[in-house]
Order: sequence, then C-alpha cells, then structure tokens
Amino acid sequence: MNINQNFNKLQSNYLFTEIVNRGKAYQQAHPDTKLLKLGVGDVTLPLPAPIINAMHNAVEDLAHVETFHGYGLEEGNLFLRTAIIQNDYKPLGIQIDTDEVFISDGAGSDLGNTSELFDVNNHVAVLDPVYPAYVDTNVMAGRSGIWSNGRWSDIEYLPCTAENAFVPELPKTQADIIYLCFPNNPTGTTLTRQQLQLWVDYAIEHKSIIIFDSAYEIFIEEDDVPHSIYELPGAKQCAIEIRSYSKTAGFTSVRCGYTVVPKATGLNGMWYRRQCTKFNGASYISQRGAEATYSDVGRAGIMKNICYYKQNAELIRTGLQSIGYQVYGGVNAPYIWMKVPNDTDSWTFFDLLLDRCQVLCTPGVGFGMSGQGYVRFSAFGSRSDTQEAIQRIRRL
Amino acid sequence: MNINQNFNKLQSNYLFTEIVNRGKAYQQAHPDTKLLKLGVGDVTLPLPAPIINAMHNAVEDLAHVETFHGYGLEEGNLFLRTAIIQNDYKPLGIQIDTDEVFISDGAGSDLGNTSELFDVNNHVAVLDPVYPAYVDTNVMAGRSGIWSNGRWSDIEYLPCTAENAFVPELPKTQADIIYLCFPNNPTGTTLTRQQLQLWVDYAIEHKSIIIFDSAYEIFIEEDDVPHSIYELPGAKQCAIEIRSYSKTAGFTSVRCGYTVVPKATGLNGMWYRRQCTKFNGASYISQRGAEATYSDVGRAGIMKNICYYKQNAELIRTGLQSIGYQVYGGVNAPYIWMKVPNDTDSWTFFDLLLDRCQVLCTPGVGFGMSGQGYVRFSAFGSRSDTQEAIQRIRRL
Repeated sequence: MNINQNFNKLQSNYLFTEIVNRGKAYQQAHPDTKLLKLGVGDVTLPLPAPIINAMHNAVEDLAHVETFHGYGLEEGNLFLRTAIIQNDYKPLGIQIDTDEVFISDGAGSDLGNTSELFDVNNHVAVLDPVYPAYVDTNVMAGRSGIWSNGRWSDIEYLPCTAENAFVPELPKTQADIIYLCFPNNPTGTTLTRQQLQLWVDYAIEHKSIIIFDSAYEIFIEEDDVPHSIYELPGAKQCAIEIRSYSKTAGFTSVRCGYTVVPKATGLNGMWYRRQCTKFNGASYISQRGAEATYSDVGRAGIMKNICYYKQNAELIRTGLQSIGYQVYGGVNAPYIWMKVPNDTDSWTFFDLLLDRCQVLCTPGVGFGMSGQGYVRFSAFGSRSDTQEAIQRIRRL
Repeated sequence: MNINQNFNKLQSNYLFTEIVNRGKAYQQAHPDTKLLKLGVGDVTLPLPAPIINAMHNAVEDLAHVETFHGYGLEEGNLFLRTAIIQNDYKPLGIQIDTDEVFISDGAGSDLGNTSELFDVNNHVAVLDPVYPAYVDTNVMAGRSGIWSNGRWSDIEYLPCTAENAFVPELPKTQADIIYLCFPNNPTGTTLTRQQLQLWVDYAIEHKSIIIFDSAYEIFIEEDDVPHSIYELPGAKQCAIEIRSYSKTAGFTSVRCGYTVVPKATGLNGMWYRRQCTKFNGASYISQRGAEATYSDVGRAGIMKNICYYKQNAELIRTGLQSIGYQVYGGVNAPYIWMKVPNDTDSWTFFDLLLDRCQVLCTPGVGFGMSGQGYVRFSAFGSRSDTQEAIQRIRRL
C-alpha cells in the first residue's frame, strides 16, 4: 500500500499547542498567578434556555417509539434547511433552494472536504494571515508545491496588513480556488459590498470558485458589510458559502453548521453525491438545537450572548487604543488584531505579555508570514478576565 | 477551476431510492394495503433510558457556566476513548492505546475519509456483494479504472456466494487496500478466526491495509467468530477497524462511531493530522450517549434491543427455511440473505414479493453482480410486521 505522500509535506502546526505549553510552563513556575486567556477562539457562555430545551426535546423524541427515528437525510433534515432559507437568506432578498443547503457537523469538515470536488491541478489562493486548515487541506490534496521560506510554492498568498487596510489585492496569477473568510479570522476585519464584488467579478471572469467562510457573520453590525456573499450579483455562479453555529450559537461542542452549494456553480450534484457517500448526516439533536436559534426566544438568547462577546471586543479594542496601540477588527468580529509596536515580532510580544501581564494572546505569525508583528486577542473570555487583562496591559 | 473528473465516472446508485419509489407506487395504486418493510437497514426501537438520561445530562452540562465547555478534542473525548478500550478491547486481551482510538460522527464518514491516507496508485479489493460506499469513495479518489459490464476495471471483486459458502478467496492480484465487513452487510455471514487470519497474513505479506468494517459486531453470538480483527496476530500492523454505535445502540440519528488506527500501521499520525485538519470532533452529547452504552444499565438496555432484533432475524431465517428457501446469515448479523429459487433475478423476486405479499426486501444485485439472484431481509422491523411478513410469504 502506498501512502498519500503529500502528508509528509505537512509542516508542524504547533501554534495553539505552543501557546498552551508556554502558558502551562509559566503557570507551573508561578502557581499563584492567575493567567488570563485572551488567545483562544472558543466560546465560553452556556447555551440559551430555548436551545437547551429544543435539544432536551430532541433527546426525548428518541426515547419513545412514536417519535423515534433513525437515519436522517445526508443533506440534513428539511426542518433546518427550511429555517435557514427563511431566516438567513430570504430577509436578504436571496433565493436559495432547499436542495442547495447541506447541513454539516460543522464548518471545519466542509472547509476541508469541499477540496475533494476539485482536481489536483488547480491553483489555490489564500489570504495571509490565514486559518491554517485551508492551506493544510490543499497540501494533503497535492496542490501546495514545495515549502520554501515559510510559504508553499504553488499557493498564492494575498497579504492583509495595515498597509493595505486589510483589503487584499486580487490574485496576480490565475487563482482557481480562492478561500475567503469575512468577517476575518484572525484579523477581525471585513470587506464592504463593493470590495467583495471585485472578488465575485474576478471569480466569474477567471472561472474560479470562492470558498466563502462566513462563520462570524452574526458579529456584523456595520451596514455596508455583506451578510452573505450571495448578496452580490453573480456570486451564485462562483461561490460556496460555509456557515457554522459554533460561534453563532455557542455550538463548538454540539457540532452543527451548513454549506450552500448553488446549482449555478455546477458543483451541487457533486457535493450531494460526496455527502451521500461519505457522510450520514448531522446529529438530529444538534439539528434541533440549530433550528431553535431561529425562533424568537432562541434568537434573543443567542443575541444576548453575542452582545456579551461584542462588548468584550469593544473593551479590548478601545482599551488597547487608549493605551496607544494600533488595533484593527473587533467591530464586526470577535477578534482584535493588534500591531506590535517597535517592530517587535509576534512571539516576543506574546512572551512579554505572558511574563509581565500574565495575559495569553495569539501570535499573529502563527497564521502566516503577513501576521508577523501582530497579535490576536479574542473576545470570547469572561467580562472580568477581559477587563482585568486590559488593566494589566495598561500597566505594561 | 477544474473539477475532480472522477465524479463523472460515478454510476447512479438508485438502489434504495428505487426500492422506495416502487414501494410508493404500489402503495398509491393500493391505498388500503399495509406494506411491510423488511428492506431497510435502519433501527426502529427507541433508545434505552440510561442512554437517554446520559444525553439529557450532557445537554444540561451545556446550559450552565460551571459545566459548559466548547471544542472537545478532534480525536474524541478521553472519557469515551477510555471506555472503548476498557470494554471493547481489554476483555478480548487486546492492548490498544488511547491515542489509537479516534471518535467519529459515524462509520460512514471514516469509511470514506480513510481513503485520503492513500496514494491514488493503489489497487483496491472489495467483496462482492459489497456496501456501495467502499467502492464509490475509491471511484472519487481515482482508483477505479473504467466501468465495464457492471464492474470497475481496476477494482478486484471477490465473490461471496452460496458456492463458496460466502468465504471469499484471497485476491489474485496484488491488493493494496482491502475492504472487509464482518459480520457482513448484506449477506449476514461471518468468517471464523482461522478464515480471517488468512487475510491478515495476506495483508502482512503484501504490505496491504485492511479497512475492517465492524459495524455489526454486537450481533455476534457464535464462539469462533472474532469480535475484533485485532484478536488475530499481526492485525495491528495491517488493519484499521471501524465501529459504529448506529446499529449497536440505535444511534443512526445520534451519530457516533470510532476508528482504531494502530501505530504499527504507520498511519496513526497521518489520521490524527487528517482529523485535526478536517474534523472538529464528534458531538459532546452523542459521545456522552455512547459512553453510557458501557455502563451496566446501559449495556443491559442496548442488549435488550439487540435481542429483539436477533429474535426477528431468527423468525425470518427459520420462517424462510421452513417454507423451503435457501437462507444464509441472520445468526451473527441482523441480515438474512436469501437465494431466489429457479434462477429468478433479484428485482423480479422483489416485484413478486411486493405484488403478491406486499413485503419490501432489498434486491441483492443492488450490492453487486454476485448479489444477483439473492434478496436481503432486514431484522430491524417491528415484531408484528416481521411475523406477518413471513406469514404472507408462506402463502406465496
């Protein structure tokens, strides 16, 4: 048996492990210190009661012969696909058919698995900094070329830095598969409708496909930021949109998301076939929980949590600004991206913040070369930790 | 963007859709008739109380800040991996480490996704009849060759028929990736330890990997049938074992399973990396439900349901035998595989059974050429439907 040799190319990705390890080492050396963790991109607030109730009811459905059922549809139960169309798309004036929506066990799976729809011979473009899984899934698929100077030779990296106001330039070479994430992880920045339209136009002209990761959509508050790529004319021809309830509704352990593959992309039937062959549908309990996020009380519950995180983001953003740091993002996203002063590199600042303030952030360089000299703060911590972290940084 | 052209090769797989459609058409033409569905391989009994309670508790954990948590480990929570080793392997004398067990959202995903670990240049062998997804996932990966006379040119099919007592011969060509499913779907037959040892020996000699689908393990009752491929010397070098709670515990809508990738295969690190990149872990609620199947009361609950299905299997098996049919399987499996008399083909008998008895079975030819002339009955129906179906067939 011959293994997939592309796996041997994968670079070690110790970013989050390294953060945890450095934090642990510090804690062991200073057992009485309280470390404040503003690095992690995971939710912390419990789920709202209407969603808990819906999942209890779903569990109870499986306890009685009258309401028990087995396999759901591989593409997801109709109740959830209908709720998605009615609530996430119809209010935006977007027409999506139920057979264009595929329920998943989370965005992570679909961001990886959609790569299977494409031939190995495709040129990939990603933003830099970038969520590492977009790149690694294409390394595994053989589209990366060779690793050289911190980048893959066959992948085009599109820098997003303070210099271009985090608005990436269009690819200079033919980009066949383009990964976009807006609101962005890690920078917390967004594109306006006009800016995103350029990408849709590019994709149509170059017959590219855009994999649009929209996991942080619920954090959008500015008017000119599109909530879906399908708000833009032409996007249904060239874009797959991937969403998740992980950040929207605190579902990181519940596992539910969805992917829209419009028929106009020509990929809808392929994705359906892929899912029917290699996936047996998302958990019924998780799907009932996701459905409950669309009821009036469910929506109110998740928005209360989102507001809490957004207020944390505001505290971090304005706090760091008032100290004199250059910060970005944090308005339409739960992440604040901070320029480290004096050309200090990401890990040096990380260590400084750990040592002097006992605060954990995420070094920007872990997301790519263009993240060097930045750090990411997350708004998913508790209010008191967030406030105290800013106070400690103020004394730095 | 260039699509994965292998998808264009996929043959339409209308087996279960066609069964449903023929059933529906018959029902519409005969609205007063009660159709008895003995075709479907999906569970029907509600979940036992201890498992329901465990899932309620897990939901409740997510409702309170003290017990809430976000992302679990991509490879699965330790409580479940530990329970698996303690209960599924240790009693068999098999030593498996916790980092060799990977929790999944069900066997379907892992049976498909493990294909990514291997180069396109590998020769695949499957049993015939065969669960269609094993083949389709390799078609998508480019390992099938061309479709000709009902088979793929580059896949070796190993017939399992009454003539060889459903004991497949070893591959005649070099088989790099071998899919085995025992107890078998669809035939319901098994291999003895001695018979399975030949496959392990073959795999070691030929440096092959065996993907061992063990979804029906809990139905095993005969002593000489191995419960795990790792009971056999050498298997840890050459076998990945895939299990599911779907049939074991009625989890077809709950979604949980696991895959063992021993370090001795050389694939453990690759699979870990694959899962960390393209999977964010199984639902916490589902994992807590799976854990509960290992408690004394949980085990008693699931065994009660398994006994019910096994009694159905016995009714079908002995019932059909007493009518004079040749039947196979149904002892260590929930499926009964019946030879259609008089060289009648599978679909003709399916239609006859539908038309004359209003009973739905599954045409064996839908699982491959060697399934022609057989039909499959499933033991997952209700007792009364199962009894009535046999009575109706008796009057055929």
